[in-house]
Amino acid sequence: MTRGLFITFEGTEGVGKSTAIRGASDWLTQQGVAHRVTREPGGTPMAEEIREVLLRSREEPVDPTCELLLMFSARAQHLARVIRPALEAGEWVLCDRFTDATYAYQGGGRELDSAPVAQLESLVQGETLRPDAVLWLDAPVETGMARVAGRGGEPDRFEHERVRFFERVRQVYEARAGNPANRYRRIDAEVTADEVADAVRKTMEELHREWTSLQ
Amino acid sequence: MTRGLFITFEGTEGVGKSTAIRGASDWLTQQGVAHRVTREPGGTPMAEEIREVLLRSREEPVDPTCELLLMFSARAQHLARVIRPALEAGEWVLCDRFTDATYAYQGGGRELDSAPVAQLESLVQGETLRPDAVLWLDAPVETGMARVAGRGGEPDRFEHERVRFFERVRQVYEARAGNPANRYRRIDAEVTADEVADAVRKTMEELHREWTSLQ
Repeated sequence: MTRGLFITFEGTEGVGKSTAIRGASDWLTQQGVAHRVTREPGGTPMAEEIREVLLRSREEPVDPTCELLLMFSARAQHLARVIRPALEAGEWVLCDRFTDATYAYQGGGRELDSAPVAQLESLVQGETLRPDAVLWLDAPVETGMARVAGRGGEPDRFEHERVRFFERVRQVYEARAGNPANRYRRIDAEVTADEVADAVRKTMEELHREWTSLQ
Repeated sequence: MTRGLFITFEGTEGVGKSTAIRGASDWLTQQGVAHRVTREPGGTPMAEEIREVLLRSREEPVDPTCELLLMFSARAQHLARVIRPALEAGEWVLCDRFTDATYAYQGGGRELDSAPVAQLESLVQGETLRPDAVLWLDAPVETGMARVAGRGGEPDRFEHERVRFFERVRQVYEARAGNPANRYRRIDAEVTADEVADAVRKTMEELHREWTSLQ
């Protein structure tokens, strides 16, 4: 039994990750490839509880190391209960965000050093479990934010801060994409939805061809 | 302003930690020493939410690494919001369990390697934040368990575990107590409640004398 492929979807807000994952899943279904769609943080009942703790609005300022450890605790559970068993059973796993998002959001956005992220990546994933491909949907931060807001116009002061945050996030994705060991497949997300869907499908076809040739 | 002392209370179930902490706190109050009593996992609203996720009974088997990371995520928040600020303000902190419990319960009880515990200890606490004294209440496992059984209330997930589990926990405490760098003060908890209270007070007096001589 060939191990399934582990494909993650990354990008800043509003780049169209959900649509891309739906398209990729539909294409795999057409090919008769067993797969599951999941997300981070979350993916198991307990990991979804951890997600709620992470995302809940609260008065209490959240320590960045606390946040980072919560991310990886949910990831450890998700890997043990869902991702590893599925891959070992030959299923593909399509995951909405994974460790690249931690590098980008906690490391870049929150300006935490990347060293603890790398340390926790090794602790939780060992040295071998990494995505077989990272589909990075890339668009300028303002494009994505305008899509999320559902309007154009000039960003206010608060939105300027958010723009700077997401610029840092995007820079980490860009830097990581430059290292072939990270297996990024950049998808231009500034074009029309149909063009993005075509690019996603083309990437899935390539991955599927490589995977089939291994069987 | 002299930094406060950080005193943790450790031991297996039913050894009388709560009573010991109350006694230590009462004694500090009599001496007019500003202090706070707290516990792990928990100690802040967010860390208490993480505690609930950890202790909740669930069908889903909990991955040991997930559990370990949850412990340290709560600890990071507790340190940032409560323990470090209190110590820096000159207050003493009396904490019901701390990282020694993680070595003992996750490392020993769950038979996880101690290496990830040590790695996370460094990540979350740095190389300097360690208890100034660990008051280890030590009694044979069966003695403690018999006391817990007589206490009533719903046993939580950890209390469901067996004697062998607690034997492994106690062995780790014992091994750690053997290293002076860990600053253990063993308190015999097999004697009468009054004798335990006397031993706790005597230890507090010693710690207070040393602390006062630094001022």
